[in-house]
Amino acid sequence: MDKKIQIAICGYGNLGKGVESEIEKNPDMELAAIFTRRKDTDSLETKSNVPVVHTGDASEWKDKVDVMILCGGSKSDLPLQGPLLAKDFNTVDSFDTHAKIPDYFKEIDEAAKAGNNISIISIGWDPGLFSLMRLYFGSVLQDGKTYSFWGEGVSQGHSEAIRGIEGVTGAIQYTVPSPSAMDRVRKGENPELTAREKHKRLCYVVLEPGADAQIIKKKIQEMPDYFADYDTTVYFISEEELINKHAKMKHGGNVIHIGQTGDGHNQSIEFSLKLDSNPEFTSSILISFARAAYRLSAAGKCGARTIFDIKPKLLGLSDPDDLMSNLL
Amino acid sequence: MDKKIQIAICGYGNLGKGVESEIEKNPDMELAAIFTRRKDTDSLETKSNVPVVHTGDASEWKDKVDVMILCGGSKSDLPLQGPLLAKDFNTVDSFDTHAKIPDYFKEIDEAAKAGNNISIISIGWDPGLFSLMRLYFGSVLQDGKTYSFWGEGVSQGHSEAIRGIEGVTGAIQYTVPSPSAMDRVRKGENPELTAREKHKRLCYVVLEPGADAQIIKKKIQEMPDYFADYDTTVYFISEEELINKHAKMKHGGNVIHIGQTGDGHNQSIEFSLKLDSNPEFTSSILISFARAAYRLSAAGKCGARTIFDIKPKLLGLSDPDDLMSNLL
Repeated sequence: MDKKIQIAICGYGNLGKGVESEIEKNPDMELAAIFTRRKDTDSLETKSNVPVVHTGDASEWKDKVDVMILCGGSKSDLPLQGPLLAKDFNTVDSFDTHAKIPDYFKEIDEAAKAGNNISIISIGWDPGLFSLMRLYFGSVLQDGKTYSFWGEGVSQGHSEAIRGIEGVTGAIQYTVPSPSAMDRVRKGENPELTAREKHKRLCYVVLEPGADAQIIKKKIQEMPDYFADYDTTVYFISEEELINKHAKMKHGGNVIHIGQTGDGHNQSIEFSLKLDSNPEFTSSILISFARAAYRLSAAGKCGARTIFDIKPKLLGLSDPDDLMSNLL
Repeated sequence: MDKKIQIAICGYGNLGKGVESEIEKNPDMELAAIFTRRKDTDSLETKSNVPVVHTGDASEWKDKVDVMILCGGSKSDLPLQGPLLAKDFNTVDSFDTHAKIPDYFKEIDEAAKAGNNISIISIGWDPGLFSLMRLYFGSVLQDGKTYSFWGEGVSQGHSEAIRGIEGVTGAIQYTVPSPSAMDRVRKGENPELTAREKHKRLCYVVLEPGADAQIIKKKIQEMPDYFADYDTTVYFISEEELINKHAKMKHGGNVIHIGQTGDGHNQSIEFSLKLDSNPEFTSSILISFARAAYRLSAAGKCGARTIFDIKPKLLGLSDPDDLMSNLL
């Protein structure tokens, strides 16, 4: 067998741990190292026992790593780490701040080209597989409309937004899609749906002693972009309840496209996910695109890519002839 | 606006008519001509009133057509027409004899390279979108299993197989998936399912006067590959009933992949189609891949491609920057 693709993880949170646990399901890959911002790298206990390296020393690993999977957050980690690491490594990341993707792409593209590396950005399920479905569905049925529903599941971004409020010590926010809105879409009604009609938001919040529940509830429900446009319910719970009842990382969602052809024929396409573990699923997607990054780089390509730029065959474990015989 | 992509149709059956009706939903394309094997081209009445050309004169249209969509059958039309036309035109076809795809690919590849053209083969929903889902799902969740279910809908191949029996003047065969098998898959049981457990087959057959119903029923139910491995029910009906009750071309299907990650977490991905018109949907897919063929050819590429080789962005109407802002 050929030498295995050497993968590194940068950032050892839920996503990094997911990559660590899922990499072994891919017989063509192995984990080479885990990179962390912690100065005291010895304090990081990992499952795999691969070397733990401070991100400041990353460039020393340039020749020992084929693809670095960036598992940091989109708010503060990736905007800094992405461009820096793309100079020295092929990278894959899950940058998910939709509005900032074009700018992030440009920055990463410059860095990756400077280092003659490939960087695939915004990989996961949304952005990621959902984006891909929106593109395929809309391209195939031009006379149609695409709806994305998320949940039921925890939105990290919304949970963090609540945690940022003074007087809050912990919070989890569930995004819940409206079954009746989904039914209307599936029936081919092509409804115009407001944000409020598509999803509701449930918040479980732990307060600091002495914090004013009514004021905090109002702050949450009126927060622009995050909650103001939704029916938002706020429950105040104890720290124990938060830990015991809200640690699950289930998630899911649906992309539904209804198009019309010919003489009033409804054509319906649906993609759906039911996930026991959101981070492990996202990690698995990142790993498959690390394979694509490796292959593109081996073919002499460089620069930034999105999921829209990647030939599907680059993800498969099998060679193209086998794909044709077995999957086509 | 740029010059529109000039599309030709070869073969004016259900699929060709579907391309004719759906092309107008794609503002970057227009129909240039319809090619037919009929000598008497004037006798072909079309909806669009574009020129009708005998396939023998196709090469005269070389410079007037950007992409030829081949709408003939896989049994006798495409194996002959595909390689011939790929020498003179960029082509897209829906060749669907799974077992013969690798050989067909090679033949088309040689012809397309000789003519410096692009040919995208085996486009539709299976082979086609279903194949794509099998590849994406299996690549993302390596530790998992993919199930394809078809129906309820008419299988042209199975209907033709019945029509080939002496004493049969008409027949329609419906493939019906087993709801309980699908439930078991969705529950994450990862069952081993036989052909019989996944689908049943319903046949509506019109007999020649004097034909022996029992013998024909036995011939159908024992036909290897097509029916012997399934629970096959045969109903004998009149010609009128066949025409009045079985002319609908609804179809659909599901690709379900259940994978495991981490500590026994089930991750479930499902893709499903509900189609009022099977041929119009397939036509719509062919059209979107005609756009990809045009773009590949314009970029100087040549040779055969499958759906696995096509970057998703090549299908979209918008340019890559817009895709990133609007769909990612």
